[in-house]
Amino acid sequence: MPTSAQLPPLLAFGAHPDDIEFGAGGIVAGETRAGRRVHFVVCSRGEAGTNGTPKQRTAETRRAAKILGATIEFLELDGDAHLETKAAHALALAGVIRRVRPGIVLAPTTEPNQHPDHWRLGQLVRDATRLARYGGLAELKARPAHAIGQLFFYALGPGSEPPGHPPVVIDLSAPGIVATWTKAMAAHASQLKTRNYVELQLARARVRGLDAGVDHAQALWPNDPLVFDSLTPLTRGARRF
Amino acid sequence: MPTSAQLPPLLAFGAHPDDIEFGAGGIVAGETRAGRRVHFVVCSRGEAGTNGTPKQRTAETRRAAKILGATIEFLELDGDAHLETKAAHALALAGVIRRVRPGIVLAPTTEPNQHPDHWRLGQLVRDATRLARYGGLAELKARPAHAIGQLFFYALGPGSEPPGHPPVVIDLSAPGIVATWTKAMAAHASQLKTRNYVELQLARARVRGLDAGVDHAQALWPNDPLVFDSLTPLTRGARRF
Amino acid sequence: MPTSAQLPPLLAFGAHPDDIEFGAGGIVAGETRAGRRVHFVVCSRGEAGTNGTPKQRTAETRRAAKILGATIEFLELDGDAHLETKAAHALALAGVIRRVRPGIVLAPTTEPNQHPDHWRLGQLVRDATRLARYGGLAELKARPAHAIGQLFFYALGPGSEPPGHPPVVIDLSAPGIVATWTKAMAAHASQLKTRNYVELQLARARVRGLDAGVDHAQALWPNDPLVFDSLTPLTRGARRF
Amino acid sequence: MPTSAQLPPLLAFGAHPDDIEFGAGGIVAGETRAGRRVHFVVCSRGEAGTNGTPKQRTAETRRAAKILGATIEFLELDGDAHLETKAAHALALAGVIRRVRPGIVLAPTTEPNQHPDHWRLGQLVRDATRLARYGGLAELKARPAHAIGQLFFYALGPGSEPPGHPPVVIDLSAPGIVATWTKAMAAHASQLKTRNYVELQLARARVRGLDAGVDHAQALWPNDPLVFDSLTPLTRGARRF
Amino acid sequence: MPTSAQLPPLLAFGAHPDDIEFGAGGIVAGETRAGRRVHFVVCSRGEAGTNGTPKQRTAETRRAAKILGATIEFLELDGDAHLETKAAHALALAGVIRRVRPGIVLAPTTEPNQHPDHWRLGQLVRDATRLARYGGLAELKARPAHAIGQLFFYALGPGSEPPGHPPVVIDLSAPGIVATWTKAMAAHASQLKTRNYVELQLARARVRGLDAGVDHAQALWPNDPLVFDSLTPLTRGARRF
Amino acid sequence: MPTSAQLPPLLAFGAHPDDIEFGAGGIVAGETRAGRRVHFVVCSRGEAGTNGTPKQRTAETRRAAKILGATIEFLELDGDAHLETKAAHALALAGVIRRVRPGIVLAPTTEPNQHPDHWRLGQLVRDATRLARYGGLAELKARPAHAIGQLFFYALGPGSEPPGHPPVVIDLSAPGIVATWTKAMAAHASQLKTRNYVELQLARARVRGLDAGVDHAQALWPNDPLVFDSLTPLTRGARRF
Repeated sequence: MPTSAQLPPLLAFGAHPDDIEFGAGGIVAGETRAGRRVHFVVCSRGEAGTNGTPKQRTAETRRAAKILGATIEFLELDGDAHLETKAAHALALAGVIRRVRPGIVLAPTTEPNQHPDHWRLGQLVRDATRLARYGGLAELKARPAHAIGQLFFYALGPGSEPPGHPPVVIDLSAPGIVATWTKAMAAHASQLKTRNYVELQLARARVRGLDAGVDHAQALWPNDPLVFDSLTPLTRGARRF
Repeated sequence: MPTSAQLPPLLAFGAHPDDIEFGAGGIVAGETRAGRRVHFVVCSRGEAGTNGTPKQRTAETRRAAKILGATIEFLELDGDAHLETKAAHALALAGVIRRVRPGIVLAPTTEPNQHPDHWRLGQLVRDATRLARYGGLAELKARPAHAIGQLFFYALGPGSEPPGHPPVVIDLSAPGIVATWTKAMAAHASQLKTRNYVELQLARARVRGLDAGVDHAQALWPNDPLVFDSLTPLTRGARRF
Repeated sequence: MPTSAQLPPLLAFGAHPDDIEFGAGGIVAGETRAGRRVHFVVCSRGEAGTNGTPKQRTAETRRAAKILGATIEFLELDGDAHLETKAAHALALAGVIRRVRPGIVLAPTTEPNQHPDHWRLGQLVRDATRLARYGGLAELKARPAHAIGQLFFYALGPGSEPPGHPPVVIDLSAPGIVATWTKAMAAHASQLKTRNYVELQLARARVRGLDAGVDHAQALWPNDPLVFDSLTPLTRGARRF
Repeated sequence: MPTSAQLPPLLAFGAHPDDIEFGAGGIVAGETRAGRRVHFVVCSRGEAGTNGTPKQRTAETRRAAKILGATIEFLELDGDAHLETKAAHALALAGVIRRVRPGIVLAPTTEPNQHPDHWRLGQLVRDATRLARYGGLAELKARPAHAIGQLFFYALGPGSEPPGHPPVVIDLSAPGIVATWTKAMAAHASQLKTRNYVELQLARARVRGLDAGVDHAQALWPNDPLVFDSLTPLTRGARRF
Repeated sequence: MPTSAQLPPLLAFGAHPDDIEFGAGGIVAGETRAGRRVHFVVCSRGEAGTNGTPKQRTAETRRAAKILGATIEFLELDGDAHLETKAAHALALAGVIRRVRPGIVLAPTTEPNQHPDHWRLGQLVRDATRLARYGGLAELKARPAHAIGQLFFYALGPGSEPPGHPPVVIDLSAPGIVATWTKAMAAHASQLKTRNYVELQLARARVRGLDAGVDHAQALWPNDPLVFDSLTPLTRGARRF
Repeated sequence: MPTSAQLPPLLAFGAHPDDIEFGAGGIVAGETRAGRRVHFVVCSRGEAGTNGTPKQRTAETRRAAKILGATIEFLELDGDAHLETKAAHALALAGVIRRVRPGIVLAPTTEPNQHPDHWRLGQLVRDATRLARYGGLAELKARPAHAIGQLFFYALGPGSEPPGHPPVVIDLSAPGIVATWTKAMAAHASQLKTRNYVELQLARARVRGLDAGVDHAQALWPNDPLVFDSLTPLTRGARRF
C-alpha cells in the first residue's frame, strides 16, 4: 500500500466551473481525504451559462475546490460554449500534464450528444495525455515528457455515459464523503436556481450505490484497459439486483 | 493487503480438459503463487475432440492443474460438444459455488461464435452465480447461500473475445509465471499434435503484454462493473502504442 | 384521441410476483388511471427467493395488482429460477396473448446478465408475440390469430437496461401516480426486508424524470421501430443536462 | 389534439440543396399537409457537385420547397464540401433556432462515413440545439433562449443510417403524400442525370413501408429519448416479416 | 479461376420452405448459373404458417429449388415454430455438412428479434459447422470430419439484418439472375396471398444494388473474418450515395 | 484474373514515417510482389517523436518504401502531432487521389483513442475519397474526378482496431513476404530503440495467421461493404480455434 505521500497526483479537467464537482466530486473528496494531491484545471468561466457572472462562478469554483481539498487553476481556451478541437489546445493541456505529472487524469466523456465543450474537452485531454509523453514536441520542451497511469472519463448526466462501456464504480460510503461532496456542489449556488443538479447527482450516486451494495457510488470510464498485478484488488462487483 | 490465508478462493470452470489452462492459465499461475487457493471444475473429458482419449485427457488435466497448483474435479453435464442450457446444470454449478465459496469465478466468454460448449457454459456459470445467492432453492438447501465477489470471463482465442468490452489485463511478468503456464499448457500433449495452441496463447499474451508495457499479460472480461474503495489500485493502463 | 373504452388492453408478463411492479409499475398506474384495461401474467410464485413463502407472495402480488388497478393470473412454467427456453412455453404465452388480445405487451428485457428467468421470459414473450399471429399453429387453434401493436421491455435494475438502445420515457408526474406505484411496490413486504428495492426504483425514476424535465419517469425499450402517422406525438425529448 | 395553428414549427437543416427533400421530404409533405409550418435552412448552393450550377440548384430548391409547402432560406457557412466544425457555425445555427423557435428540428445523421458536409452539419445542429437554450451567449443575445422539443436525424442513403439505433417510422401512406414528395424530388432535375436518387429514396421508403405494414414510410433517428405522457401514441410497431 | 467442376458445393439451410429463396435466392441463382452445385436443406414443411398446407408448400419448394437449379431435401427437427436449441439438432445438421462437404454454408441470421425458428436455426448451423470438424463425435463417425470454408448468414427482412455488421454484397445484375430469382419466389404462391414478400425482397435488392452501383444486389453476413491471398478480389465497395 | 499490368494502383497514406510499414507493410509487400504499383504518401516527418531527427526519419522511410517496392512522397499538412481536421487537408489528399488514380486506398483507422494524427488522417482520407469524385470542386479542377474502388483502414496496434467490425484478413504466408516486411520495419532503426514495434507487429500477425490457419496474416477494415460478382472469392474464413 502506498503511503499518502507516495500517491501520484490526480489531475482533473473541467470545461466549466462546476463540471468536475458534479461529475466526479464524490471521488475527489475520497482521494483528498486519503491524502492524494488533487488539482483542478477549469477551461472556462462559465460565461455562456444562463445564470451567474464569470466573477461569481470563479468564486464558487474556488470555494468548491477548497471544500474538496483540491487546488485549482483556470486555463483559457476558446471560452464557454466556443471550444474547438485545435492542436494548440491539446498541446496546452499536455503542458499542464507535464507540469503536474499526475498518475491519474479525469476528463468529461467524449459522447458527442452533450454540451459541445464537454466532449471536445474529453477528446482534447485524451490527445493531450499522448502528446505529454512524446519527446520531440517543440512547444513542450520546457519540461520532461510524462506518461500518466490512466485517464478516466466522468459523466455529467445519464445521457453522457458511454453506452455499453462498463465503468469502474467508486464506493463513496466512507463517513463524510457524500456530505463533503454535497457541500462542494452546493457552493455553485448560481447554478442551482433553475435546475436540480445536486439532486440529479445524488440520485445517480444512490442508484450506483444500491447496485453496488453500498450507500452511494460514482462511476468512471477508463480510457484504456486497466492493468493489475493480480486479481487481489478485483474481488468486488456491482450487480445486487 | 490480505495475507494469502485471507485470499478468497478462485473457482475456474472449463468446458473441456484444457480450456482453463489455455484461456487463463497464466493468471492462475500467478494467483496460486500468491497463495490463493484455486479450484478447477472441468465439465467434460474432451471425448469429442479429434485427438486424445478421455482417459489421456483426464490425466493431462490432472497434471496441468498440479503444475499450476490448483485442485481439480470433473463434473458430468451433457458430455463434450453436447452441452445444453438447462436449469439443472445451472443449479449443479451453483451447488459447486456454494461448496467452494469463491471470491472470484472464471468461466469462458458467452460470445456465441465459438465452440458451442464454451458460450453455453459461460452463460450457465453466469446464471449459477446468481442462483448461488438465492435462499429458497430446494436443490441447494444443503449449503448456505453464497454471493461471489466477481465473475470474470476468459477467451480461448481472438474470436472469443467480447468485441467492444474493455478487459482487465493481468500482468504475467513476475519471474517464472509464463514458464509455469507454458509447462501446464504443454501437459496437454494430445492436443498439441495438430494445432499450435501453445504458440497462439503465448503470442496473444505477448501482444497484450507489449501493449501494457510488460513482458506478457492475459485479459479477463468482468461480468459486472468493478467496485473499488478508491483510485489507488487503478493507476495502470494498457496502451503503449 | 381514443376514449378509454377504445384503448386496447395492456398485457404485462413477469417472471416473479414483483417484477412488473418494480420494473413498470408507475407506467401501469398511469394506464389504468387513463382507463386502459391492464392484465398481469406472473410466471412463478417466487418460490426460490430468499424471503417470503409462495403463499405470501401470491397474496402480495394480488394486493399490488389491485392497487394498480390490474387483473392478474398466474401461469405455471418451470418454476422460479428454473425457467427454460421451450417452444411449449412460447406457445402457452401466445395462447394468453390470443385470449387477452392486447395492443401493448410488456416483458422483462432480454439482457443475459440478470436473473436467468428474466431474460428467458423476455425472449419467450418476444417469440410468443410472433406465434400469436401465425394462423397454422395447432396448439393455438382454439382462438383466432392476434397481432399486437408493440412489445416493450422493462428493466428491473440499471444492469438490465439494454446498453445503447434508447428507450421511450413515460412521464409519471401526473398527481398520484408515483404514490400509487409506491404503494403497490410496498405491498411486496416480504421482499423489502433485505434490499432497498423501492428506493432503487424511485431513485431510478427520479434520474429519468430529472433528465426529462419532470418529477419522475420510467423507461421502456420498444422491440420494434415505433410507427407514427405524423410528428405530432413526438415533440418531447429527454436531455435536460 | 393540437389544432394546426398550435403545431410548433418544424425547422429542417440541409447541407446541400436537395438533402432535406431526399432524406425527409415525405415526412415534410405530411407535416405541411397537417398544417404545420415548416422552414428549410440550406447551408450551401451545391457548388461542388458534378452537375448543376449554383443558380440552377438554388432555383430547384426553391421550387421543391414550394411543392412541399415549406419556406426556405440559404445560410452561407464554408461552402459545399468545405464545411468545418467551428463554434461560430453552431452559434449561427443556434441563432436561426432562436428566430424560428421550432418544436422539432431535422438534420442529417452524424455517421462519419458519408459526405463530409452531412455529418458535420448534423453535429453542428446538435450543438446548436443546446446553445440555443443557454442564456449567457453574447452572440445570441438579440433573441430569447429557446429549447426545442426534439431533434431528429434523417439519412440520405442506407449507409448513412445509424447502425443499431432504432428509428421512428413515419407512415406516408395518406393519399397524395408520396406523389407530392416525388414531385419535390423531381424538382432537382440537375441531380437526376447521373444517379437514381429518386428511385433510391422510393425503394427505401417502400422497404420501410412494407416492414411497417403500410405503403411507404420514412425513418428518423431521435437524438434524445422520446418522452410521452402515456402509452396511447405507442401502439404501432414495424416488423411485419 | 476454378472451373465450375472445381467449385466446392454450396449448402443452404432454411427453417421454412421459402426462407432460402426469399433471403438468398438471387445469390443462389448466380452460383448455379456459374456451375456450382447448390443443395437446400429445409427444416420444416411450414405447417404453422397462415396459408398453405404442408403438401402444397413442399411442392412449391421443390419447384422453386428446381427453378434455381438446386437440389433439395427436408430435414425434420421439431416442426415449424417449434424449433429448440438441442445438441442433437446441431449434430444432425453437422451430419448433413459431412455428407455434402460444402465450401460455403448459408443460414438465417441469429438476430433474436425475428421468427423464433430463424435465429435458432442460424445458431444451430453455426454450432454444426464446428461439430462437423471435430474428430471424436460418436454420432458423426460414419463420415470423415469436414471443415467448411465460410458460413454466411442471410436476412429475410430488414429487421433480421445484424446491425453494425457490414455485409458482403453480391451483384445480381448479370442477365437473367433477377428474373430467375423472381420466378423462384413466385413459386411460393401460397405465401403471396397476404403479404408482399416478393416486392419486399426486390425492393431490398434494389436499394442494395443502387448503393453498390449496380441494378440489384443481395447481402450476406460472414460468420468469420474473410481471408484472401491478396487485395485483388477486393476492389469494389458499396457506397454510391 | 487481371495481369499485373492491369492491377489498379494502391495508394497508402501514413501520418508518420513508419505508420504504413507497421500497420500494413506485409500486405504492401505482397501487392508489389504481385506486380501492383504502390505509392506511399507520408504526412509528416515524425518530428514530434521521442527518437530520430526529421532527416533521419525521412531517410529511413525512403529505405523502407524501397524495400517494399513502393514509391513515396511527403505531404506537409500541419506537422507531426499537430494535424487538424481541415477541409483544405481533405482537398489536398483528394488531389493526390486524382493524380494517382488508385483502385485501393489505405489509411489509419478512425478510432479516436490513438495518436491524434492517426484517426484524424483516417477521417480526412475518408472525406478525400468522396471529394475526389465530385465534379464541381474548384481546387481539384486540374484533374478529372476519380472514384476509388475501396478504402481500407489499417491498425497500428491492438487498441486502434475498430471493435466489433470484422476485418478482412490477408494471408502473408507466401515465401519471403514476412521477411521483406520485417526488413522494411527494421529500416526504421531510430524508432526501435525504446519500443518493440517490430515484435508487436509480428506477434499480432502471428495471432491473425494462426487464427486463419496460415503462418502470418494482417487485417484491414473496409470502409464500405465489399461487393463481389459471386461467392467464388469468398471461400476462406478465419476461426481455427
